[in-house]
Amino acid sequence: MSSASGQTYSARASKHSNALVKRLFDIAELKKTNVTVSADVTSTMELLELADCLGPHIAVIKTHVDIVSDFSNDTVVGLKRLAEKHNFLIFEDRKFIDIGNTVQKQYHGGALRISEWAHIINCSILPGGGIVEALAQVASSNDFHHGPERGLLILAEMTSKGSLATGAYTTASVDYAREYKDFVIGFISTRALTEVQSDVTSATEGEDFVVFTTGVNLSSKGDKLGQQYQTPKSAIERGADFIIAGRGIYAASDPVEAVKRYQKEGWDAYLGRVARTE
Amino acid sequence: MSSASGQTYSARASKHSNALVKRLFDIAELKKTNVTVSADVTSTMELLELADCLGPHIAVIKTHVDIVSDFSNDTVVGLKRLAEKHNFLIFEDRKFIDIGNTVQKQYHGGALRISEWAHIINCSILPGGGIVEALAQVASSNDFHHGPERGLLILAEMTSKGSLATGAYTTASVDYAREYKDFVIGFISTRALTEVQSDVTSATEGEDFVVFTTGVNLSSKGDKLGQQYQTPKSAIERGADFIIAGRGIYAASDPVEAVKRYQKEGWDAYLGRVARTE
Repeated sequence: MSSASGQTYSARASKHSNALVKRLFDIAELKKTNVTVSADVTSTMELLELADCLGPHIAVIKTHVDIVSDFSNDTVVGLKRLAEKHNFLIFEDRKFIDIGNTVQKQYHGGALRISEWAHIINCSILPGGGIVEALAQVASSNDFHHGPERGLLILAEMTSKGSLATGAYTTASVDYAREYKDFVIGFISTRALTEVQSDVTSATEGEDFVVFTTGVNLSSKGDKLGQQYQTPKSAIERGADFIIAGRGIYAASDPVEAVKRYQKEGWDAYLGRVARTE
Repeated sequence: MSSASGQTYSARASKHSNALVKRLFDIAELKKTNVTVSADVTSTMELLELADCLGPHIAVIKTHVDIVSDFSNDTVVGLKRLAEKHNFLIFEDRKFIDIGNTVQKQYHGGALRISEWAHIINCSILPGGGIVEALAQVASSNDFHHGPERGLLILAEMTSKGSLATGAYTTASVDYAREYKDFVIGFISTRALTEVQSDVTSATEGEDFVVFTTGVNLSSKGDKLGQQYQTPKSAIERGADFIIAGRGIYAASDPVEAVKRYQKEGWDAYLGRVARTE
């Protein structure tokens, strides 16, 4: 667990140099939620209905916008409107994984216009550092107007069975995060990674990368295709700052009732973590 | 270099059990080309124009269809029509890298309808074996009618600087290819991988995975975002069966003249490889 994990979201917001992270922590504190809902539905109507009814209870909505069969300008406009209405951030879980020249075209423009509406994106560092540099370049270019409202999570670990996002791969994720820390706001990982030992970089004073943990589910242990779940409490005790839950919420018979349970469990676990550190 | 690399495309076609691989080798032999053009342009008109003028000289067109800003049904219909007209295959370089449940929705249906038009797709095995199983499930399901015309390449290595697709990652790629060999037709890699030593699997008699090598360029050594190039000849001597060239062709002042050079160099290198083995 990093030292940052023991602090309140407010305390971290007040010290953080990144405007997007400040906003994220402020949202969490204001709405008393660390829930990111993975809204893996396949039509614009379902996506917007889910965003509207879950909106009051989440800090972030996570999308795979390429699974939306009728994706159009309405999807983008609707999502942005609901993000403002309910004060949440949008995280497009694209998992960029290509050479720099390609990911720039995938992120900015293209069929899905991701840079226009997603506050947060993520990438794998399997291709090497060029991918992080290339995405950071897009966000910092002069003709891109959303720069300060954009950030990158590095996919440092995965929760699926047989994941190879371990060892040297995870360490390199931490190294690239430190190298490009103006744009990299944190990790997709199963734990805080500040304690990872690297030969290349070391944590700076007050380092505070945000940890998003996937595979959170209150009632299932996994699926038939290798996904493995844990509870909100166990994820937060391992260092998650934001818990990502998908089927446990959107596939529940009452998604609003479900998201409230995740919100309460996630928030109580966070309060417990902070209390233990004081 | 694997034993298959020393054989002609015809000989390999005649022995191969996979219908799509047979067709791929037949196309190569018939058109005397092992060129895959990476058509990284950002409009439907450019993409279709490129596919039409380069069509006679290529075995495969490789797309990143999400970079096409006006992607629509016209893109799909146009691409399929040109693939028939010029007898080439379509490879969507999506680099799937998610849990099984998600990649199924990204591959089949969704905003980009990839399963409908792409003969070949690829994935990273970073998430573990569930991703390969999930994609294979889509192609073999009863209500999917393109099954025998679909195949998967595993992204076993990358050509970008600092690539972590090495060592245990590459070995696991070979293991998963063998485990799911009905659907996995080969690799994106810089060399034939049959000789890779694994503790888990070993090559069966006559194993013949197709090798696609990226980063082929006749005049450049690399770009500013970490891509590293090699020539058609060096790629084929290392075991590439199909060479993937992008900017060296589509960004040339005369793309048709350029593709003919890649076609000749690639074909001569292939003939040389076969001759040396005889």
